Amino acid sequence: MRIGVLGLKGSYSEKAAKQWITKNVLENDNILEHCSDIQDVFTLLENKQCDIGVVPLENSIEGSVGITLDLLLEKDVNIIGETIVTIEHCLLSRGKKEDIKVVLSHPQGLGQCRNFLKKTFPLAELRTTGSTSHAAKLATEFEEMAAIASPETADVYKLDILMPNIQDRKHNHTRFVIITRSETTEDIIRSLRPTDSCDPYKTSIIVYLDRDRPGALYSILGEFAKNNINLTRIESRPSKKVLGDYVFYIDFEGNISDDIIKDAIYNIESSVGMLKMLGSYPELNSSCESN
Amino acid sequence: MRIGVLGLKGSYSEKAAKQWITKNVLENDNILEHCSDIQDVFTLLENKQCDIGVVPLENSIEGSVGITLDLLLEKDVNIIGETIVTIEHCLLSRGKKEDIKVVLSHPQGLGQCRNFLKKTFPLAELRTTGSTSHAAKLATEFEEMAAIASPETADVYKLDILMPNIQDRKHNHTRFVIITRSETTEDIIRSLRPTDSCDPYKTSIIVYLDRDRPGALYSILGEFAKNNINLTRIESRPSKKVLGDYVFYIDFEGNISDDIIKDAIYNIESSVGMLKMLGSYPELNSSCESN
Repeated sequence: MRIGVLGLKGSYSEKAAKQWITKNVLENDNILEHCSDIQDVFTLLENKQCDIGVVPLENSIEGSVGITLDLLLEKDVNIIGETIVTIEHCLLSRGKKEDIKVVLSHPQGLGQCRNFLKKTFPLAELRTTGSTSHAAKLATEFEEMAAIASPETADVYKLDILMPNIQDRKHNHTRFVIITRSETTEDIIRSLRPTDSCDPYKTSIIVYLDRDRPGALYSILGEFAKNNINLTRIESRPSKKVLGDYVFYIDFEGNISDDIIKDAIYNIESSVGMLKMLGSYPELNSSCESN
Repeated sequence: MRIGVLGLKGSYSEKAAKQWITKNVLENDNILEHCSDIQDVFTLLENKQCDIGVVPLENSIEGSVGITLDLLLEKDVNIIGETIVTIEHCLLSRGKKEDIKVVLSHPQGLGQCRNFLKKTFPLAELRTTGSTSHAAKLATEFEEMAAIASPETADVYKLDILMPNIQDRKHNHTRFVIITRSETTEDIIRSLRPTDSCDPYKTSIIVYLDRDRPGALYSILGEFAKNNINLTRIESRPSKKVLGDYVFYIDFEGNISDDIIKDAIYNIESSVGMLKMLGSYPELNSSCESN
């Protein structure tokens, strides 16, 4: 299978893809397609240049990755899995710490190290790249440049780790989702290693509420509560129509093939402006997962 | 009063501050203190170097400003007002369009023009600045640099508007909040121009739910629903403890001085891990507002 990942060799997305492949994919001849930014992963998928995409969804320090949420709504894709990667940002450079004038990273990398940067490099120029691994590659150009990226990229691009573990909180994790084109979702799921039957499932949906119906969000949550369906996440994004108008991304435990989930979705669908089903997939961090 | 705003002369925050001052502040001798980033506005306020701060909270295209949400939780501040600014991003430079190699802006500016940048400058290097107005100032240095900033900053920094209205959606608005140190909040509110008594109020709170209580969010929303209190916004941010653990920012109609709101807050407070009251303040975009 051809798997589109964000960034170059050594990127966190590559790590995420490898983690997920090891656990889920049977065949050995998988090709990683490296993409320059998140949008490119979706484009590659859309253009049938890859079968699966791996993109970051949320980080434990800096929160949601807005562009991923937006594209999950816009594009005709499903989520078929998730994986969590431990993030260990390092400051990488060819030069010395005292010579650094420019720090490069993905906006999430810069955000996760905001306090570090303000304290250690208050005068440095900050540059945005499409991925942390691109930042590492660019940092090879000049000694006055440093990248915020993974220790693996230091090896790949022959950079020194000037400072390890520079993120603002000790624990830093990013959740990646595994996506497919909707038309191929079922075929791809069938080709995966069978999941341990004890694995619990999680379902992701996007809903757009009617603005004129106050309490609409409450009534949706009521559908989950009355059936004891556990919500694991609720996140809002602008609808991009007017300020103060939102779509909601909701994750909850259960599989769309369960009757209880099917009924809840049916009831919710009839009371909202739009419902997009992103998919049901094995949940991580469950008791099963730790076995 | 000394008012801390994000960015330099011509910034959107300056515009927000002026809009709010005109409507709310009695005295004429107000001094604007320009800050290099959002964190600096909070620091200036904390160090008593200003009395009021004006910071962006959410944008209709790119969503929440994460650092503002985080600092509203961390710092001992209150919200005393809000104002909405129409955003009209332009591409500003000393050079010509075909020579542009570097585009500078605040991460929100780059995010709001993501499709434009990908289409028009697919190879340009993107650099992050603390504010859009800083980007404009930096763009004066080289002809190959362009900034994404307001048309006002073009005048201030003698830059040409190479392309007007470049954001990815026609309508682009940012909501700014007006903040004070908690200890001075009441004095400052008393010094403001009295609000028209018909002006409705909005209240902002932050809650941290007990993870071990499924349905906790539903039961909070139930407090609002049963009292017909209209929610205007609900937004999650990582608690920064572990992935999948969140705090919720909730805005709703009503004033904490109303008995019905006071009772709801009392009931919610007893069922959550933490509740921070950010404040009650006149709501914009109401029917009163348009008079």
